[in-house]
Amino acid sequence: MADISLDEVGHAAERLKPWAHLTPVLTSQTLNERCGASVFLKCENFQRVGAFKFRGAMNALLQLTDEEKARGVVTHSSGNHAQALALAGKLLEIPVCVVMPRTAPAIKRAATEGYGATVVPCEPTQADREATVERLIGEHGYTLIHPFDDWRIIAGQGTAAWELLDQAAPLDVVLTPVGGGGLLSGTAIAVKGRSLATRVIGAEPEMVDDAARSFRSGRIEPTNNAQTIADGLRTSLGPKTFAVIREHVDDIVTVSETEIVGAMRFLWERLKIVVEPSSAVPVAAVLNAKLPVQGRRVGIILSGGNVDLEPLFRALSV
Amino acid sequence: MADISLDEVGHAAERLKPWAHLTPVLTSQTLNERCGASVFLKCENFQRVGAFKFRGAMNALLQLTDEEKARGVVTHSSGNHAQALALAGKLLEIPVCVVMPRTAPAIKRAATEGYGATVVPCEPTQADREATVERLIGEHGYTLIHPFDDWRIIAGQGTAAWELLDQAAPLDVVLTPVGGGGLLSGTAIAVKGRSLATRVIGAEPEMVDDAARSFRSGRIEPTNNAQTIADGLRTSLGPKTFAVIREHVDDIVTVSETEIVGAMRFLWERLKIVVEPSSAVPVAAVLNAKLPVQGRRVGIILSGGNVDLEPLFRALSV
Repeated sequence: MADISLDEVGHAAERLKPWAHLTPVLTSQTLNERCGASVFLKCENFQRVGAFKFRGAMNALLQLTDEEKARGVVTHSSGNHAQALALAGKLLEIPVCVVMPRTAPAIKRAATEGYGATVVPCEPTQADREATVERLIGEHGYTLIHPFDDWRIIAGQGTAAWELLDQAAPLDVVLTPVGGGGLLSGTAIAVKGRSLATRVIGAEPEMVDDAARSFRSGRIEPTNNAQTIADGLRTSLGPKTFAVIREHVDDIVTVSETEIVGAMRFLWERLKIVVEPSSAVPVAAVLNAKLPVQGRRVGIILSGGNVDLEPLFRALSV
Repeated sequence: MADISLDEVGHAAERLKPWAHLTPVLTSQTLNERCGASVFLKCENFQRVGAFKFRGAMNALLQLTDEEKARGVVTHSSGNHAQALALAGKLLEIPVCVVMPRTAPAIKRAATEGYGATVVPCEPTQADREATVERLIGEHGYTLIHPFDDWRIIAGQGTAAWELLDQAAPLDVVLTPVGGGGLLSGTAIAVKGRSLATRVIGAEPEMVDDAARSFRSGRIEPTNNAQTIADGLRTSLGPKTFAVIREHVDDIVTVSETEIVGAMRFLWERLKIVVEPSSAVPVAAVLNAKLPVQGRRVGIILSGGNVDLEPLFRALSV
């Protein structure tokens, strides 16, 4: 059972107000016509560092003791969580150390370091990643801020849905992408606590359908280790996120790679927003009728907008 | 002197309320830091048909007599005005005919026809374009809806700035791109009428600096006919738009192609929004200190987001 309550998401929402953007909710007549529903897109691609991850990272750091703050924090991530924690640490003057596989793109390392964090490379294996984190904690007394399996992170991520309810309630369904499950579990707590009848649905690439399989089998299934374009969703669930998902989430649906790309292109071309492939996953689910949405009010959390645009600007020859 | 007053922009704003999107205003800490100013971006890329042009087209059609509505309208454009007028006509059930050079991209023709307009090709010369429009007016009794040199169009385009003032006043400066001058002149009327001390500045590519030259010489100078990436701004001013610009605009500044591309990339990467090159022109002006903005509150109209994304999705191999 979840160790946090709706209250904790509400507290996180208050705590984050001076720090996080209140991101806008966009709608599109074309999207509504294609789905036969009223769809409300919560634009976390406009959040600081370009992703909802800033919410959880900031919420976690704001709750450290003074002693913990002075010693600093450590995490492992080569994605949005790394940059989110780095920025949160910079804003609060807390040292941040990020363990990143040495195979991570140089641009990701540079972005994290750009926010003032220290990056420590590790071998691209789970064993070495964990050993490196443990070693750093032993040496420096860092507090671990896990990318998703942490109640402070989960509560922080839930604040996007909390705001969405303020902006677009009543909603019949809320969808989020699911990777490690931080966003989905936080969303489920926020939504079910405020509106029990609202369905909460996770959306996942077919290629990495471990959350859907876990949801059906009742235990955490390993990831497929597949190269879905939605690179933010390659992670497996954690014990905490899975406990919340089992208790509060109504279903997890899956979409094909083609459906993800189609939804992503739709969002860029029609909504005029830059979103990363992970954000397109729940949109693909409603565009391709993976769940009943006819005539309903549907909220979707667009998780982020961090895409490497170098190929685009090269292709446009500009 | 301008034949329309501030009142007419206010009336247009009321008239458009049921039809046009109230587009959001985005801000960015990074942008503010880079310019040393508080910048408010009015996102007309989120407007219907992806550009501010819907405002003017709809405002014009809403003021036709029943007889004019029944006979239909004609315009010449291969850009956003064509699609804007086509959509406005579809919504109001008014026949729309668009004269388009036969060299226009097939995708633009298809988009315009997709909204139910009739496209009549012409030779890519001003003479044949005008002759074709005249012929169609003679044959069908169409009303001409000029892309910019029309008071109804100018008033409609001014409603974007009108909303921006509601959303972000007080503003020290408001910038827009300038091509034919519909957006700049409408903006100038709206802004100067409500806040005389606010400076109104046009921004233009160096490569097609005819508006800047006209502003200085006091007469309409011909366009340079150059292939700026900001393809929406290749047009010369018209007599009506120029009259307003002379009377109400404080300055016209120019930016290089490199500066336009840099600003466009900044908007895509940092703001996570899809904007067309024309939208990046005034942003390039503030990013490159083409006017004093230090410590000021600066409004910018982002004109649109219609970019062909085919090369991007090809480059991403998705």
